[in-house]
Amino acid sequence: MINDLFLKACLRQPTPRTPVWMMRQAGRYLAEYRAIRAKTDFLMLCKTPELAAEVTIQPVDIVAVDAAIIFSDILVVPEAMGMELIVEEGKGGPRFSSPVRTSSEIAKLSVPDPNDKLKYVMDALSLVRKQLNGRVPLIGFSGSPWTLAAYMVEGRGSKNFRYIKEMIYNDSHLAHKLLEKLAQSVAAYLSAQIEAGAQAVQIFDTWGGILTPDAFQEFSLQYIRQVVSELKTNGAPVIIFCKDCSHSLEKIAATGCQVVGLDWTVDIGDARTLVGDTVALQGNMDPTILYAKPEQIREEVRAILSKYGKGPGHIFNLGHGILPDIPVEHAKEFVQAVKEESVAFH
Amino acid sequence: MINDLFLKACLRQPTPRTPVWMMRQAGRYLAEYRAIRAKTDFLMLCKTPELAAEVTIQPVDIVAVDAAIIFSDILVVPEAMGMELIVEEGKGGPRFSSPVRTSSEIAKLSVPDPNDKLKYVMDALSLVRKQLNGRVPLIGFSGSPWTLAAYMVEGRGSKNFRYIKEMIYNDSHLAHKLLEKLAQSVAAYLSAQIEAGAQAVQIFDTWGGILTPDAFQEFSLQYIRQVVSELKTNGAPVIIFCKDCSHSLEKIAATGCQVVGLDWTVDIGDARTLVGDTVALQGNMDPTILYAKPEQIREEVRAILSKYGKGPGHIFNLGHGILPDIPVEHAKEFVQAVKEESVAFH
Repeated sequence: MINDLFLKACLRQPTPRTPVWMMRQAGRYLAEYRAIRAKTDFLMLCKTPELAAEVTIQPVDIVAVDAAIIFSDILVVPEAMGMELIVEEGKGGPRFSSPVRTSSEIAKLSVPDPNDKLKYVMDALSLVRKQLNGRVPLIGFSGSPWTLAAYMVEGRGSKNFRYIKEMIYNDSHLAHKLLEKLAQSVAAYLSAQIEAGAQAVQIFDTWGGILTPDAFQEFSLQYIRQVVSELKTNGAPVIIFCKDCSHSLEKIAATGCQVVGLDWTVDIGDARTLVGDTVALQGNMDPTILYAKPEQIREEVRAILSKYGKGPGHIFNLGHGILPDIPVEHAKEFVQAVKEESVAFH
Repeated sequence: MINDLFLKACLRQPTPRTPVWMMRQAGRYLAEYRAIRAKTDFLMLCKTPELAAEVTIQPVDIVAVDAAIIFSDILVVPEAMGMELIVEEGKGGPRFSSPVRTSSEIAKLSVPDPNDKLKYVMDALSLVRKQLNGRVPLIGFSGSPWTLAAYMVEGRGSKNFRYIKEMIYNDSHLAHKLLEKLAQSVAAYLSAQIEAGAQAVQIFDTWGGILTPDAFQEFSLQYIRQVVSELKTNGAPVIIFCKDCSHSLEKIAATGCQVVGLDWTVDIGDARTLVGDTVALQGNMDPTILYAKPEQIREEVRAILSKYGKGPGHIFNLGHGILPDIPVEHAKEFVQAVKEESVAFH
């Protein structure tokens, strides 16, 4: 059976119910994922197409989401550009052995050919498409240029982002050089993903929200817009998710994307009033609601459906990634609740 | 010389220039503060009025800010309610030995008499007022009920705030019991601070931004409103600073406060258009701009002054606390730039 609800909703076409998937749905809350990770380290999992395909499809089988998203990590792009990526178990998040902070360090970075340096991602996408055989659509993704730059300049996740902030305030020219290179890399990467089988792509701007609204325009959104305009989409919808950036929803919606992702700090009804005539909206349940009892999860699902209101153009999702210690039964209840409760809104 | 620019600006009265102070201005970026901390642990510093007074006044002498804010910590209130507060050097932030998560644990918490359990704060305030002798006004403060509850239920700072979120979603009745007790404690605490010498008070809602807009109303703003209405202000302005809550600026401004604090993720010009007829605005420079070169700091100061525009009702500040590794010369340049550049706007 072919389920294309997700793609239809991206294009704001009528559907009998609201489609649903979860950011980070191929992840540690699933015992089946943990079983594979027990035998394989994180980067090896990203780089082995058969295994990446397996964990990509797990949530479709187990949680019954309406879309698959390729299992990978946003930091494989900087790695392909020439940085050494290190992921050590239990030692915090991934990091780079040497951050890039100087003009010569940035000059050394290449714009990688995604079909060479990131071929394992393309192979995984092709394999998943084949294995899914139309059951649900497949989403590709990338970090935004700004979010990748933040990781590359800091060397890792950060609380205050001292080094990238210093760069944009003290030497914005240098930051723009890096971002330009990243925009080219991301556009090529996402185009290749679509060619390899991704039926939609999502750009994650995880760190757009650390910027002032003006700096967000200059250092993040400008380059997202460039990526969207350079993308060879072949009709695939583009989703833009900028966390903590609801100050700029109208500008995000005007980048040329088809879908705007919302975190949970914005009322989805307000967002629809603001931009819902031009783009579909994806989101926006607080991921911690999945800690609550199933009946409470269902009530929160109903509340968000009511806020969005009747009609097409809503893809249900969490406002950020599902947390690793969520009981899988709660994730199932969430998906089931969206499927059942949303019928009345279509 | 008496400098009451800060108090006038809180009441939107004309001033010859914009007053300026910095959140966490009595802190580690000052060598003079570090010298005292080298001899005294953090809690002892909070609880020794002579030392607390000394570090409170340091930034007035050294950086020439237009207001002093009493040196203390928001977690002294839960401690006074009966929790054991632990601050170990170099082991992350302060924490509680036993978080409160059950009905009986919450029932055991008392609403403390601030002139008994928190007398050291009152003594420090009286001492600072005496020592300042009118040079600049003195600000008292408290965490908001929600922010204190988040710390008390988690036991410490948190990334996902699993336990307090679980409580509000699964057992909101219990959360409201805790918040009610906190609202009473905070109102009594701030009233006592004003009686002891605070000429304005600020309520810090550091964690309001982790909530959905609806949950923010129900679990945070409702109790801030209660505190404001129960406060015996004796004419002292009340400042409300809810970090990452610009989705609710109008509602924050309608709590009865005189000043709304802004983080750096909102355009202060937009905020003034929205609520500037009813309240003064405090903020809103990205604290990481202080890593930049002095001429860049001055440019960012000018940009924010221009966004706010002409006329009274602006207290310049950072959008969050000054970071510990900021060069003190940059902090001085910031304060000086506000003093010089703002004249043209009055």
